[in-house]
Amino acid sequence: MLNQLQDILDDIKQVDYSLSSKVQARLDDLTKPQGSLGRLEEIVTKFAVVAGTDSPVLKKKKVFCFAADHGVAEEGVSAFPAEATSQMVYNMLNGGAAINVLARHAGADLDVIDIGVNHDFPGLSGLKKRKIRKSSANIAKAPAMSIDEALQAIMAGVAFAKRAHGDGYHLLGTGEMGIANTTPATALFAVLLDLPVESIAGRGTGIDDKMFDHKISIIKQAIETNKDSLVTPLDVLASLGGFEIAGICGLILGAASAGMPVVVDGFISSAGAVAAMNLSCKVTDYLFFSHLSNEQGHKAVMAKLGARPILDLDLRLGEGTGAALAMQVIEGAVKIYNEMATFSSANVSEKQ
Amino acid sequence: MLNQLQDILDDIKQVDYSLSSKVQARLDDLTKPQGSLGRLEEIVTKFAVVAGTDSPVLKKKKVFCFAADHGVAEEGVSAFPAEATSQMVYNMLNGGAAINVLARHAGADLDVIDIGVNHDFPGLSGLKKRKIRKSSANIAKAPAMSIDEALQAIMAGVAFAKRAHGDGYHLLGTGEMGIANTTPATALFAVLLDLPVESIAGRGTGIDDKMFDHKISIIKQAIETNKDSLVTPLDVLASLGGFEIAGICGLILGAASAGMPVVVDGFISSAGAVAAMNLSCKVTDYLFFSHLSNEQGHKAVMAKLGARPILDLDLRLGEGTGAALAMQVIEGAVKIYNEMATFSSANVSEKQ
Repeated sequence: MLNQLQDILDDIKQVDYSLSSKVQARLDDLTKPQGSLGRLEEIVTKFAVVAGTDSPVLKKKKVFCFAADHGVAEEGVSAFPAEATSQMVYNMLNGGAAINVLARHAGADLDVIDIGVNHDFPGLSGLKKRKIRKSSANIAKAPAMSIDEALQAIMAGVAFAKRAHGDGYHLLGTGEMGIANTTPATALFAVLLDLPVESIAGRGTGIDDKMFDHKISIIKQAIETNKDSLVTPLDVLASLGGFEIAGICGLILGAASAGMPVVVDGFISSAGAVAAMNLSCKVTDYLFFSHLSNEQGHKAVMAKLGARPILDLDLRLGEGTGAALAMQVIEGAVKIYNEMATFSSANVSEKQ
Repeated sequence: MLNQLQDILDDIKQVDYSLSSKVQARLDDLTKPQGSLGRLEEIVTKFAVVAGTDSPVLKKKKVFCFAADHGVAEEGVSAFPAEATSQMVYNMLNGGAAINVLARHAGADLDVIDIGVNHDFPGLSGLKKRKIRKSSANIAKAPAMSIDEALQAIMAGVAFAKRAHGDGYHLLGTGEMGIANTTPATALFAVLLDLPVESIAGRGTGIDDKMFDHKISIIKQAIETNKDSLVTPLDVLASLGGFEIAGICGLILGAASAGMPVVVDGFISSAGAVAAMNLSCKVTDYLFFSHLSNEQGHKAVMAKLGARPILDLDLRLGEGTGAALAMQVIEGAVKIYNEMATFSSANVSEKQ
C-alpha cells in the first residue's frame, strides 16, 4: 500500500505558473481598473493555473466531510461527549447540520464519510462507509493507528478525489466531524511545523481554563509517548493523527494528482493539509485555505505556512463550513473572469 | 424638501436589541457548539433585530448602482477619462460589468441609476433616469451642488428604498460608478470624521505618485474653498460630495426608515453611509459594511467608525461588487438560523 501512495505522490505535477501571465492579461482587459478585484484576481489565476487552462470552468463542487472518533477523547479534552460524533453523522444525513445548510447555499454536493466512527450505522443510506476501525487509539498512550491503517485512510481519501474527478467535479472541499479532534490536529502541527504546543492549542468546542491546561499536557504527553516513531510525515500522521485527518490528507493528494484544486476548511482540515504538504511539497499550489479559524492556533499555523485565508469570520465549527462559504467567493472569481466584458468589446476608455 | 428629509429622519426607529437574546437562544439551540459560527451569528442577529422579528426572511436582494460625474475630474485626479462613467453605464446595462456578474452570482437584482452622469442616454431601456444635473461642479472651485440638489439626490435614493420595501425586498446593497469620486469621498471623510487628508487619500483606480500628491492638494483646496459652508452634515454633503454619494445616503436613510438592512459597498459607498450616519445616528444599526477596501484610507475610516467589514479581499472597484459578495455571507447566516436542526430535534448530546 506504500507503493500505491508513492504512485499518487509521483503523479502530482508541479503547477505550471507560466499560464498565469495569460490569465492576468485577460483580467487586465476586463472593464475594470487593473488589479482592482484584488484577491478575486489571485484566486481565479490560481484556479486556472491548477486546472491548466486559461478557460477555467467551475460548475460542480463537492464538500467531503470525514467523520471519525478519537481514543484521546477519554482523557477529557473536549467539551462534548464522544457520542456526539455519531449523532452528528445522523444529523448530517438528515440535512440538519451547518454543513448541510452552507453546502446547499453554495450549490455544492456533500459526501458524509464514516472513516472511523465508534458506532455501527446499520442500513443508513447516504452514508459513505469507509470505516478503517472504530475510533483511533488514545494518542496519549499509544500511536493513533498503525502505518497500514493510516495508508488505508489516506487511500480512501485519494479514491474519493479520483472518483470526483471522474464525475466531472471542478472543485473539492474538505470537512470533518470528530469529537476531540483539535487535540490530534494540534499535536500534528506542533511536530510537523515545529510550533510550541502552548502557542497553537485552543479551546475547541468550548472548554474551560482547567480543561485547557489539561489538554495542553495531554498533547505534550502524546508527543512524548510517540516520540520514537515520529520520523517520516507518514509516521507522524499515523502516530498523532486521526482517521478523518488522514482521509483529508488523502483527498488533497488525490485531487492534486488529478489536477484539481481543493478548498481546505479550518483548523482540523489544515492538519490534513499540512500532512499532505509534508508528503509532497508540490501540493501547496493546489490549495485554497478557506478561512482563518477562531481556534486560537490557526493564526500561527497560517503564518508559518505563509497562507492568507480567503475569509475571516471567527468560525470554529469545522464540518467544511468555511470551505463551503469560500467556494462561493472562488466561484465568483471564476465568473468574473468568464463573464465580464472587455474594454474593446464594451467600448470603454482605458486608463490614460 | 428639507421637511421631507426631516420626515424620513423622524421615521428611523431605534433598533430594538431586546430581540437579540431570543435570536441568540435559538442559535445556541442549533446543533453546533455555542458561538462556533462566529460572525455568521452576529450577522443574523443584526439582520433579525433590524427586521424586528426572530423569524427573519432573506430572499429578495437588490444592489443599487448610482452613477454620476464629478466636475473635479477636470483637475486630473483620476487615472481614467471622465467619459468612462457613461461608458460603464452602457456596459452595466449590457450586463458586462463586474457588478452584473457578482449580482447575478449572489442572486441579487440590480438597478443602474443615472443620478448625474454628464451624458444623455436617449431611449436606453433598463436605466433608471433620476438625473439631478449633468455632473456636479468642481469642488476645488465651488460647492459640488446646491442644498436643493443634494436634497433631490437624497430623496431619489429614499424613493428607491421605499419602492424596494414595497416590492418585498429584504436586503439592499449600495454601489456607484463615477470617475474621480474617491476625491469627493475623501473630502467628506476628512470633514465628517475629522481625519487628516493624507491619512485617507488613496490611489483610486491607479494614479502615480505625482498625481497622488496633486490629488491630496486638490482635496485640501476643496475643503478650503468650501470651508464657510461646512456647517451641517447636509451642507458638507452638498459642498464636497457628489450626486451618487447623496443618492447612496438617501437609499440608506430610506431603508432604515422602512426597517430594512443595507449592505454598504466600499470606499465611496462608505462616504454615503457616513453622511447618512451624520444625519441620523440611529442609521448605524441598519448597516453591514461589506468589505475592507484596498483604497488606502478605508481602513482608517472603518477604524474610526469601529466597524469590522465582513470581507477583506483587497477589492477597490466599487459598483457594489463587495456588497454583492457580502450578501452571500449574510444569506448564509440567515439560512443557518432558519434551516439547521436543534439539539433536541436531532437527538444530539449537548455540551457536558
